[in-house]
Amino acid sequence: MSSKYVYYFGGERAEGNTGMRNLLGGKGANLAEMTNIGLPVPAGFTITTEVCIEFFEAKGKFTEGLKAQVNEAIKRVEAAMGMKFDEADNPLLLSVRSGARTSMPGMMDTVLNLGLNDDSIQGLIKKTNNPRFAYDSYRRFVNMYGDVVMGVRPESKDDIDPFEEILEAKREARGVKYDYELDVNALKELAAEYKAMIYERTGIEFPEEPIKQLWGSISAVFQSWYNDRAVAYRELNNIPEDWGTAVNVQAMVFGNMGDDSGTGVGFTRDPATGENIFYGEYLMNAQGEDVVAGIRTPHPIADMNQQLPEIFDELSRVRDTLDKHFRDMQDFEFTIQKDKLYMLQTRAGKRTGLASVRIAVELVHQGMISKQEALNRVEPEQLNQLLRPVFNVDEKRRVLREGGLLAKGLKAGPGAASGQVVFNAVDAVEWADKGKKIILVRIETSPEDIRGMKAAEGILTARGGMTSHAALVARQMGKVCVAGCGALNIDYKKRKIEVAGKIIKEGDWISLDGTEGQVINGELETYPSEIEQVLIHKTMKPEDSAVFGVFNEFMSWADEFRKLGIRTNADQPDQAAAAVAFGAEGIGLCRTEHMFFGGDRIVAVREMILSDTPEERKKALEKLLPMQRDDFIGIFRAMGNRPVTIRTLDPPLHEFLPHTDKEIEKLAAEMNITVEKLKHKIDSLKEFNPMLGHRGCRLGITFPEITEMQARAVFTAAAQVHREGGDVQPEVMIPLVGHMNELKQQKEIVIKVAEEVKRAFGVDFKYLVGTMIELPRAALTADKIAEQADFFSYGTNDLTQTTFGLSRDDAGSFVAQYLRERIWEEDPFIAIDREGVGELMRIGVEKGRKTRPNLKIGICGEHGGEPSSVEFCHDIGLDYVSCSPYRIPIARLAAAKAALKD
Amino acid sequence: MSSKYVYYFGGERAEGNTGMRNLLGGKGANLAEMTNIGLPVPAGFTITTEVCIEFFEAKGKFTEGLKAQVNEAIKRVEAAMGMKFDEADNPLLLSVRSGARTSMPGMMDTVLNLGLNDDSIQGLIKKTNNPRFAYDSYRRFVNMYGDVVMGVRPESKDDIDPFEEILEAKREARGVKYDYELDVNALKELAAEYKAMIYERTGIEFPEEPIKQLWGSISAVFQSWYNDRAVAYRELNNIPEDWGTAVNVQAMVFGNMGDDSGTGVGFTRDPATGENIFYGEYLMNAQGEDVVAGIRTPHPIADMNQQLPEIFDELSRVRDTLDKHFRDMQDFEFTIQKDKLYMLQTRAGKRTGLASVRIAVELVHQGMISKQEALNRVEPEQLNQLLRPVFNVDEKRRVLREGGLLAKGLKAGPGAASGQVVFNAVDAVEWADKGKKIILVRIETSPEDIRGMKAAEGILTARGGMTSHAALVARQMGKVCVAGCGALNIDYKKRKIEVAGKIIKEGDWISLDGTEGQVINGELETYPSEIEQVLIHKTMKPEDSAVFGVFNEFMSWADEFRKLGIRTNADQPDQAAAAVAFGAEGIGLCRTEHMFFGGDRIVAVREMILSDTPEERKKALEKLLPMQRDDFIGIFRAMGNRPVTIRTLDPPLHEFLPHTDKEIEKLAAEMNITVEKLKHKIDSLKEFNPMLGHRGCRLGITFPEITEMQARAVFTAAAQVHREGGDVQPEVMIPLVGHMNELKQQKEIVIKVAEEVKRAFGVDFKYLVGTMIELPRAALTADKIAEQADFFSYGTNDLTQTTFGLSRDDAGSFVAQYLRERIWEEDPFIAIDREGVGELMRIGVEKGRKTRPNLKIGICGEHGGEPSSVEFCHDIGLDYVSCSPYRIPIARLAAAKAALKD
Repeated sequence: MSSKYVYYFGGERAEGNTGMRNLLGGKGANLAEMTNIGLPVPAGFTITTEVCIEFFEAKGKFTEGLKAQVNEAIKRVEAAMGMKFDEADNPLLLSVRSGARTSMPGMMDTVLNLGLNDDSIQGLIKKTNNPRFAYDSYRRFVNMYGDVVMGVRPESKDDIDPFEEILEAKREARGVKYDYELDVNALKELAAEYKAMIYERTGIEFPEEPIKQLWGSISAVFQSWYNDRAVAYRELNNIPEDWGTAVNVQAMVFGNMGDDSGTGVGFTRDPATGENIFYGEYLMNAQGEDVVAGIRTPHPIADMNQQLPEIFDELSRVRDTLDKHFRDMQDFEFTIQKDKLYMLQTRAGKRTGLASVRIAVELVHQGMISKQEALNRVEPEQLNQLLRPVFNVDEKRRVLREGGLLAKGLKAGPGAASGQVVFNAVDAVEWADKGKKIILVRIETSPEDIRGMKAAEGILTARGGMTSHAALVARQMGKVCVAGCGALNIDYKKRKIEVAGKIIKEGDWISLDGTEGQVINGELETYPSEIEQVLIHKTMKPEDSAVFGVFNEFMSWADEFRKLGIRTNADQPDQAAAAVAFGAEGIGLCRTEHMFFGGDRIVAVREMILSDTPEERKKALEKLLPMQRDDFIGIFRAMGNRPVTIRTLDPPLHEFLPHTDKEIEKLAAEMNITVEKLKHKIDSLKEFNPMLGHRGCRLGITFPEITEMQARAVFTAAAQVHREGGDVQPEVMIPLVGHMNELKQQKEIVIKVAEEVKRAFGVDFKYLVGTMIELPRAALTADKIAEQADFFSYGTNDLTQTTFGLSRDDAGSFVAQYLRERIWEEDPFIAIDREGVGELMRIGVEKGRKTRPNLKIGICGEHGGEPSSVEFCHDIGLDYVSCSPYRIPIARLAAAKAALKD
Repeated sequence: MSSKYVYYFGGERAEGNTGMRNLLGGKGANLAEMTNIGLPVPAGFTITTEVCIEFFEAKGKFTEGLKAQVNEAIKRVEAAMGMKFDEADNPLLLSVRSGARTSMPGMMDTVLNLGLNDDSIQGLIKKTNNPRFAYDSYRRFVNMYGDVVMGVRPESKDDIDPFEEILEAKREARGVKYDYELDVNALKELAAEYKAMIYERTGIEFPEEPIKQLWGSISAVFQSWYNDRAVAYRELNNIPEDWGTAVNVQAMVFGNMGDDSGTGVGFTRDPATGENIFYGEYLMNAQGEDVVAGIRTPHPIADMNQQLPEIFDELSRVRDTLDKHFRDMQDFEFTIQKDKLYMLQTRAGKRTGLASVRIAVELVHQGMISKQEALNRVEPEQLNQLLRPVFNVDEKRRVLREGGLLAKGLKAGPGAASGQVVFNAVDAVEWADKGKKIILVRIETSPEDIRGMKAAEGILTARGGMTSHAALVARQMGKVCVAGCGALNIDYKKRKIEVAGKIIKEGDWISLDGTEGQVINGELETYPSEIEQVLIHKTMKPEDSAVFGVFNEFMSWADEFRKLGIRTNADQPDQAAAAVAFGAEGIGLCRTEHMFFGGDRIVAVREMILSDTPEERKKALEKLLPMQRDDFIGIFRAMGNRPVTIRTLDPPLHEFLPHTDKEIEKLAAEMNITVEKLKHKIDSLKEFNPMLGHRGCRLGITFPEITEMQARAVFTAAAQVHREGGDVQPEVMIPLVGHMNELKQQKEIVIKVAEEVKRAFGVDFKYLVGTMIELPRAALTADKIAEQADFFSYGTNDLTQTTFGLSRDDAGSFVAQYLRERIWEEDPFIAIDREGVGELMRIGVEKGRKTRPNLKIGICGEHGGEPSSVEFCHDIGLDYVSCSPYRIPIARLAAAKAALKD
């Protein structure tokens, strides 16, 4: 470590600056920076994070070197402030605050008013001519020091705070209700009584010497790096232990010295909308904690223009200075002590997604930052907030206050939705056809529920995780979804939910806030995002939307810089169209099985499955052929000249069969076979581990006629759209390939059909045949597979499941614990596990391109829309990512940021 | 290709030799070799396999070069035999036979007696003075040539053979029953009638010129490389297409020229027992096909000593020459033509496992081969035959002849067993306790059936593959098992099986031949192998067993050369003891869950599973602790100072719960909770993909008290046996680790308990904590995991499942097709898939040893007892393989052979 432990700031110069955040912490670095740019910062000094680390290594001892540097710094503070630490007449009071690299608000300890004792209190009284203020400060200091430094605090949650106990007794004795009603004498007594209690409890006298108080406080603030709250916060926010915290020692200024004093917070721009206005609030004759505590309601900053026009002008200049200097929206704290303004903190302000984009765009317009910087200022996930339908915040708050919250679940599909409860997909479609808004409530969803999910405003499930069927489909459809809401007791038969002591019946209204994971009783009005209104619904003109303009400009910058192509996972023409509107450059995954549901189709699908011979199966497939072909025609038209990757049938066949006795009886009657025979067939298709069973290309290999029908549907559709003048680019993708020969066999079928169709139609168009890489074996033998594949597409959902040996549907019982106990850093179903799954992907890219240097490689797993995964895909050299339509903007931004990192 | 197409042999010299098997085929190479070592081989020549390949490339045309060399060779044959091809007076007749690199018996075509026509037949009559023989040969030739070369054969299976049709008419017309009763005229007429029929059918005259006949025959024999039988045989035996076949053209000799002629086959040693005696059989006045056809019963070769003492002496010398020259048991064919001996073929003889070992050992004793060669002479799998109980062959044949075969299934557990049918594990135990021999018949087995399986003589299942639970446990227990016998219609309720039109009820006797996969009606007596009688049952002294002696000596040679350690998978003291007797050097996998079944235990296990709180769970676990401890004590005692690897609980908990309503009611009553609550709990534990669910270390992480109890049981047992003076070496193995942190967390628990126990007992012993590597992620991050692991053990069953994304329980619906269509070369659940799973293993070894250079690495999946997998384990540098007790000799030999390859 460096031999400089202490960095002074004060007057118009500081030893540190904003670039020294790792050494001085965020707070200390910015106090120094503000000093350097001439803002009025009370003098002080920062003890570095290196000292913190050393402090713990030395088991809580301070070096002589440190002590000397602190003493030196105190002298400089005294000089700057014109006061003396440890001098009764003109006492310099200090604050001691933590300050880590990133803000950990309220997690560590603080000591204020340090330097007060029975002597210096007299000096403070004399100086301020305000004995009540002085004694109030004194008793607060003794309380804070006793708690933070001397450890006098309740021993258990049920115990009363010992300081509060004395305070309460005092209020009672004086017959008052609030602390501020206590008189000077009472406050004076409190300080003494606190000290006596501390001695009684600890056997240690409260230290009167300021220097002792200072070292005690520094030590306590360092130690608070390891208090329970701080440890928990670090775990939650991935903050390494070995960063440590700095300690900031600073001259006290007081906003509570009278009506010429005050305190407040400001934002250089509106953190909610991003508008370039001065935003903030303040309180006169108050300390910072009073603004936070919410006992008194603070005033909007604009009011200060009337109340204290000079200070307001100064603050406005400060705001300009900060905004320009830091080239970003700042969130700052200030105190006015006897008409003099002091700056206590500044940092980049937290903001909504909208504000984030708008500020970034406007900073570029102002010439303050580059486009690249603007892109780096926005977290991709924040874009979600611009796209989701929303509740009115006040309306929701009111309902929650009135006890409207029924339960919380996983935030599976962001946005807001209200509707009447139905319990199955058939009802969902029926009710929706009648113009009703409905919420589909299921214990869990399956592919059979797709049409019902589509008909619903929102989806609520009792089981399933963030990548459950419900969550996956909801996000792809852009539906609001709260999943895995275990508190729901759903009774399909009685068509009711028991939850939170209430009964919700079919037809009752509920509301889902998918952004928060809340299930709310009753109806709440929702509003679609402006982006959607402009791009998808075309119900708003671009120029009428402030949001759309900045969004659109911002996204165009992302496209300038990104290297990755962006495709979408879409199975229907309307999804495809929405995806194109959001910027999709192709379809990366069209799941043909999603077309297998719905009236006529499912009957033909079931006939196909239940066929005993290839001939019967072909007959059933012939019925499906025109339906699939028409689907593809719609998609090809929607996608224009963009490539469309179509995956052949993937899920195990039993997923398409009925499960209940009643459904089975119905199907048996329809198919004119006995119930017994049907049940036997259904039983024979059951699997122990369907995820690892007869699915993917294994189906196409045992039933080549299925692959043939699907290929025929794809290519006849392509031929037809080609005739219409469309520049179709079909790419047929074979799923679940583990061995090169599987792909070879399926590819032969596809090519045979393609050539037949082209000949029959007398047209020619290009097409590709490739494969999913979704099994470890596929990645490990990618060199072999690439001999047969025109392209690879990583199916990271299944690749994660197989690499971890973990079914995402069954992981719910322990994943939360794995994350809580940090066995995993992240849920591998959300962000690509770079160490394991990512290693396989890397191997796959390397081996694949060894055989075929120009091999096109993409990803179509859910990870394709997750920012850190998109970055990884960029890093390992993929050509494109494919994600659900509503995540396309996120992927575009993430891709741009990844490219900017290079 | 070489410009030499034809290799002559005859007189005392040949152009080829036995080393030229790839070029000349096995038959041709050995005909040449026999010629060279002075044995009486009829002159001839071999057309090379290269010509075959060229023949197909040239679409069936022969080159002039070939024709010239064939003509040249014919001249040399004529000279050697003193006859002329295409000379009516003294005709040289030829045979044309196929001969591939390895024998493909009966798969390809042959033409005999070539060179006969209406002219040369007269010469033959004159020369042999045997018109009947001559005309019989003629009509056979026309028949054979018409069929093989001219394609005159039945058009469908239902058609009668056109030659047979004419023959039958002839027999009818002459009023005789057998062909040999036909007179000379009839035979003469037949040849003419055959030719007429051939012309009528084909429009082509039967070729009279011998040279035309020859080229037609050569072409036909080459073409038969691609006939259906040959193609199927190659697929079944992994013979590459591009080997091609050679063609052997050779002067005919006749064993049917009269009573001074004959034919036979000989073995230089007994192919059943390996005894060093001359074994074989012969027929006088007969052709080779008569010996095979079984119409006449041939005589034992020893009879020839009386009948033809001179020939017998000559043959005995030939036998000695062949045995010594080829340094292996030979299977040869000979013909005696008019008191002169001719050798027609020799090759290494097929033999039983016993013969294989005995011959190898005795060849070493005779100084003919080295120990290394001896080891390489025996296929590891053949050792199985020495270890299995057996039926009496004659008795079984009789029963099968009488229609006793009920069905065929998978050869899941080799050996023979007879018993009374029971349908569940409880009955199995009960009946066995009463001293009954039983066969446990289940649709499929589960861990609950373990005790029943143990009680049974054999296990028969309707579902499941070679690595199904039934097959796996059966092999480990050394039980006879026929699995996946789909023809069985099992009705648990009515306690009966419907199969092959019969009803088998509870208590009926059936017999299983697990070596053949046969299910046989009724009781057949079984006999345990001598090896077992000596080693395990100690019911036979080593010196009383001929089998044991050679086996033991042979195995000791394997141990001299192998580098791999050999461990066993064993869960019970008796299994452990058997394994040690078979040569196990430790336990590589002790599955603790196998100890969880049986009376008291399963109750406590279920209590543990159904606990709502850790406290309840601990209480239930405390009941299990002494039982597990006692199990481990038994195992530690049985294993002495050998290491014992114990795996913590692996299967998902629901496997231990009851499934039927009745069982659930019973358990609810026992546990004093409502049926509803119990059902709810059971439902909540159900999983979509149990293989990828809450199992392995995931259980130990969510329920650390289980790991703690198991560790306590292991270490208290170790402490106790240590006190008794045992040098225990416990190794605790954590299953299904995918992330280093999982192992870390479980290891901490194990170490804590181990140190506690050692302190409490006041003893010290070494122990290790390691992990299974059975997930792709574990192999890919082996460097990280090795930081925590004292050892790795590859769990290749699960590693194969996850690498392929394939559940072995669900693979049945397509694996057969995958193998048939050569999508896979081999079933990856039987032999390690080197390209995928093996690549992960290689990565795991490399990364693991990078972190910990001396990391001990083994394998405990089923592959650990499969020869080619053992070889792979040797190749990638594993320290040991672990397999079921009965496969230990196989693993020892496979390990030795792998080491010899280096």
